[in-house]
Amino acid sequence: MRVGIIGTGMVGRALGGKLVELGHEVMLGSRTEQNPTAVAWAQQAGEKGSHGTFAEAAAFGELLIVAVSGVVAVKALATAGDEHLTGKVLIDVSNPLVFSPLGEVSLEPVNVDSIGEQIQRDFPQARVVKALNTLNCELMVDPSRVPGEHQVFVAGNDPAAKADVTEVLHSFGWPKESVLDLGDITASRGLEMLMPFWLRLMNHYGHADFNYSIRSAR
Amino acid sequence: MRVGIIGTGMVGRALGGKLVELGHEVMLGSRTEQNPTAVAWAQQAGEKGSHGTFAEAAAFGELLIVAVSGVVAVKALATAGDEHLTGKVLIDVSNPLVFSPLGEVSLEPVNVDSIGEQIQRDFPQARVVKALNTLNCELMVDPSRVPGEHQVFVAGNDPAAKADVTEVLHSFGWPKESVLDLGDITASRGLEMLMPFWLRLMNHYGHADFNYSIRSAR
Repeated sequence: MRVGIIGTGMVGRALGGKLVELGHEVMLGSRTEQNPTAVAWAQQAGEKGSHGTFAEAAAFGELLIVAVSGVVAVKALATAGDEHLTGKVLIDVSNPLVFSPLGEVSLEPVNVDSIGEQIQRDFPQARVVKALNTLNCELMVDPSRVPGEHQVFVAGNDPAAKADVTEVLHSFGWPKESVLDLGDITASRGLEMLMPFWLRLMNHYGHADFNYSIRSAR
Repeated sequence: MRVGIIGTGMVGRALGGKLVELGHEVMLGSRTEQNPTAVAWAQQAGEKGSHGTFAEAAAFGELLIVAVSGVVAVKALATAGDEHLTGKVLIDVSNPLVFSPLGEVSLEPVNVDSIGEQIQRDFPQARVVKALNTLNCELMVDPSRVPGEHQVFVAGNDPAAKADVTEVLHSFGWPKESVLDLGDITASRGLEMLMPFWLRLMNHYGHADFNYSIRSAR
């Protein structure tokens, strides 16, 4: 499968690396034509890895992944071009973190809106699935870093798109029963609002190799 | 120990019932003098259970629990009287849920403030500990309803107060290692912002007998 990744940060590179390892062709998309990080990534990724602009990556991918900061996600996709998103499954892994000058972290949007919803609203022809924004990127592609059963979550309006994303997650090492479907794209609110709790847990443990396991009585 | 509970809802009654069962004297506090729910609760609770106004319950308790809706918590405590809170450990179990006329749920405050912080700010002489707002009230006092290891969280500025609350949680059946300290009272933001995720999980499972287990690699 051809995968276009919007964003060249740690998350995009981790996902891209794993997808190449699994045999997919991956183009890492950047704002600029010759982003040094993207060029270096494509070089080390081998012949299945490439780099380009947001628009080139979006045009290239049959599956798209939004891996820029949540606060610029919609803008990055507008730059990528609406026409390249139509009908495609688009995994939104972003979080809307805003850092104040004093280092205080907050979310924007929050509460009654979310990045997942913004993207689905602004690009109604894309099949948006919120996923993987609730854990560290190394763990996204290697669940065995944390022992035992733990979970990832999907949300979106298109059941077939969520099924496709569940297959991708399964290929990353997530058992299918560890992928919890939380409903339509408005569930992105709750998934994005996990971030302040997650940051406190990271502070508590002193590392990011942890994840949520939901224990249920039945 | 004498415990004053501010609020006569399901959460206050569940906590009050367990505390009476454990041998504590509990007064359930209400806005009004003869709240029928509080009267009925005190009758069935036996000689260790009583009811009164917010002010009477706050004056009575050596330990206080805020178990009203988050959006009215500060107002309820103001009614209870600042002078009855001074130096006392005050467990805030509330969530700032707001329901729109169309049934949409949101939080107020959210993101850069929380009920836990509001209470600590408005009543600086109280020793506020945010706890137990992340799970169903039946599970609060009976962790064995959900099999396996799962956790509760405490946050607050006073380490001794958090240690006292950890003892109370232990008496409810929570192993001490299942009580995670997430830091100062600003961690209330993340704990309160779990609610939208929790509501989606409840919808997913079809019941409220579930809880978070944080799995960590080390």
